Amino acid sequence: MTRGVVALAGGVGGAKLALGMSIIQPVGKLTVVVNTGDDEEFFGLHVSPDVDTVMYTLAGVSNPHTGWGILDDSYRILDRLKSLGVDSWFNLGDLDFATHIMRTDMLKKGWTLSQVTRTLSDALGIEHRIVPMTDDRVRTVLSTDVGELPMQTYFVKNQCAPVVESIKFEGAEDSVPSPGFADALEFSECLLFCPSNPFVSLAPILSIPGVKASIEGFGGTRIAVSPIVNGTAIKGPAAKMLLELGHDVSCVGVAKQYVGLCDIFVMDNLDESLCHEVEQLGMRVEMTNTIMNTEADKERLAQFVCDII
Amino acid sequence: MTRGVVALAGGVGGAKLALGMSIIQPVGKLTVVVNTGDDEEFFGLHVSPDVDTVMYTLAGVSNPHTGWGILDDSYRILDRLKSLGVDSWFNLGDLDFATHIMRTDMLKKGWTLSQVTRTLSDALGIEHRIVPMTDDRVRTVLSTDVGELPMQTYFVKNQCAPVVESIKFEGAEDSVPSPGFADALEFSECLLFCPSNPFVSLAPILSIPGVKASIEGFGGTRIAVSPIVNGTAIKGPAAKMLLELGHDVSCVGVAKQYVGLCDIFVMDNLDESLCHEVEQLGMRVEMTNTIMNTEADKERLAQFVCDII
Repeated sequence: MTRGVVALAGGVGGAKLALGMSIIQPVGKLTVVVNTGDDEEFFGLHVSPDVDTVMYTLAGVSNPHTGWGILDDSYRILDRLKSLGVDSWFNLGDLDFATHIMRTDMLKKGWTLSQVTRTLSDALGIEHRIVPMTDDRVRTVLSTDVGELPMQTYFVKNQCAPVVESIKFEGAEDSVPSPGFADALEFSECLLFCPSNPFVSLAPILSIPGVKASIEGFGGTRIAVSPIVNGTAIKGPAAKMLLELGHDVSCVGVAKQYVGLCDIFVMDNLDESLCHEVEQLGMRVEMTNTIMNTEADKERLAQFVCDII
Repeated sequence: MTRGVVALAGGVGGAKLALGMSIIQPVGKLTVVVNTGDDEEFFGLHVSPDVDTVMYTLAGVSNPHTGWGILDDSYRILDRLKSLGVDSWFNLGDLDFATHIMRTDMLKKGWTLSQVTRTLSDALGIEHRIVPMTDDRVRTVLSTDVGELPMQTYFVKNQCAPVVESIKFEGAEDSVPSPGFADALEFSECLLFCPSNPFVSLAPILSIPGVKASIEGFGGTRIAVSPIVNGTAIKGPAAKMLLELGHDVSCVGVAKQYVGLCDIFVMDNLDESLCHEVEQLGMRVEMTNTIMNTEADKERLAQFVCDII
């Protein structure tokens, strides 16, 4: 395992396995490529929810209770903005604000999101490489029964309640993979689909022109870990979206998203009865306990993945 | 006194008298026009130091120990930005950050600085009108013995140490008075030069095309209060600038800046010996104790000014 792993991740679920991988992989051998389709401006500041979740998780400062933000953060600025009359359905802590202020300032000065992410990662003491999927603007927009909603509006403001009819990635057609993503795709020996939402966390990454073709022609092992266990999502709307978009509400429905892109599908012991269905999609199945509650769980699942490689 | 007072102000000294005036004047009868030549971007956020000092002072939330910022503010964001490696010689508290985030966001969305200032003033519960001198970008730049310095760099980073050779107001030639300033100039019955620095607080206001002519033709009483008492400035570099720019380091040096623009010059009892010199400039002199340490001092000086009117 000399050429390393490129892990594709969205928010919380992806960050958990990325953390496990970061503990096991030697420095320089892990690149976490993160969805930026959720990026949005709040209060005029550029927020990259998934990038921040992965950074904070790998830095050991994430808030495990919320799944976003920084542990023990305060809310002085947000409260103040509210008292000044600012609309604020999106919550940001004070320390989190510092990240967004710095990112916005650097972007305004002409730095790329990759450069900003590298600077922030370094400042947070993260030794592994975290890269945004692209430095271009790609925006995940959901068509729902209450109209078109950008991802964070659907996810936070509407609490995932609207029925999703279709999903588009605005700007994707004009985007290119970030330099770090392109490099990792070319030189890694393992590609890992983290247990993130296939539709709004990993599909945006796959929507970037050239990425699917690169993964189809990828020289190493391609592994996916299912975010769906026993028909439900560990966190977030993945199961609800599978249903609403007309797929099997199971790990089989997830595996179908990765046909031609994945060699080995890691699913939970609880889903043993579905093993054969996944194998019929052309993937080898590996089973283990995929639920990650503790740090030890994350490291154990990451070790399981590394052992496969 | 039915048509009200328009008070020209810079930072701390101006804000003190403006506070006194705000206590005495009925709502709707006071417009405070504030210098924006010090406005600067910090961390990508638009900071209006003098506007904020006046707003916070009139709202009763200013920090009397520093002369800037909000009382009992915390510094979580600033500390965080420093730990993330951001250069930060300019200090901003957390609650203060909320002001700048909101202002920057509104400006980006196309609001004018006047509209932003009105919104912030309303949110802070200020009943009197505070307006920026202009909605255009005017920037006070000092030529010094260490090179050209924008005002805040000179004032905060260099602690006013460099020798000032000349001062320019970049962008002034293309600026116009804010609508509220133009309106107040036309309809007020008293114009008041607050005891602010004549070179970097009030000169920027006078540098806006048309303002000097309007003040020369002003129909009501024009009063200036000296920021220099007994040859020294109550606060800030006014005395040092008088010296470096070749003027009398006294209230006479200040009065000379307002020749043709001011009818009545209010100076401190301590400067009685200079009374004749000021009168020779064509101004009527009124003397009182002009030092404002307490709230009562501010109200008393404001009452003194109102009695003159």
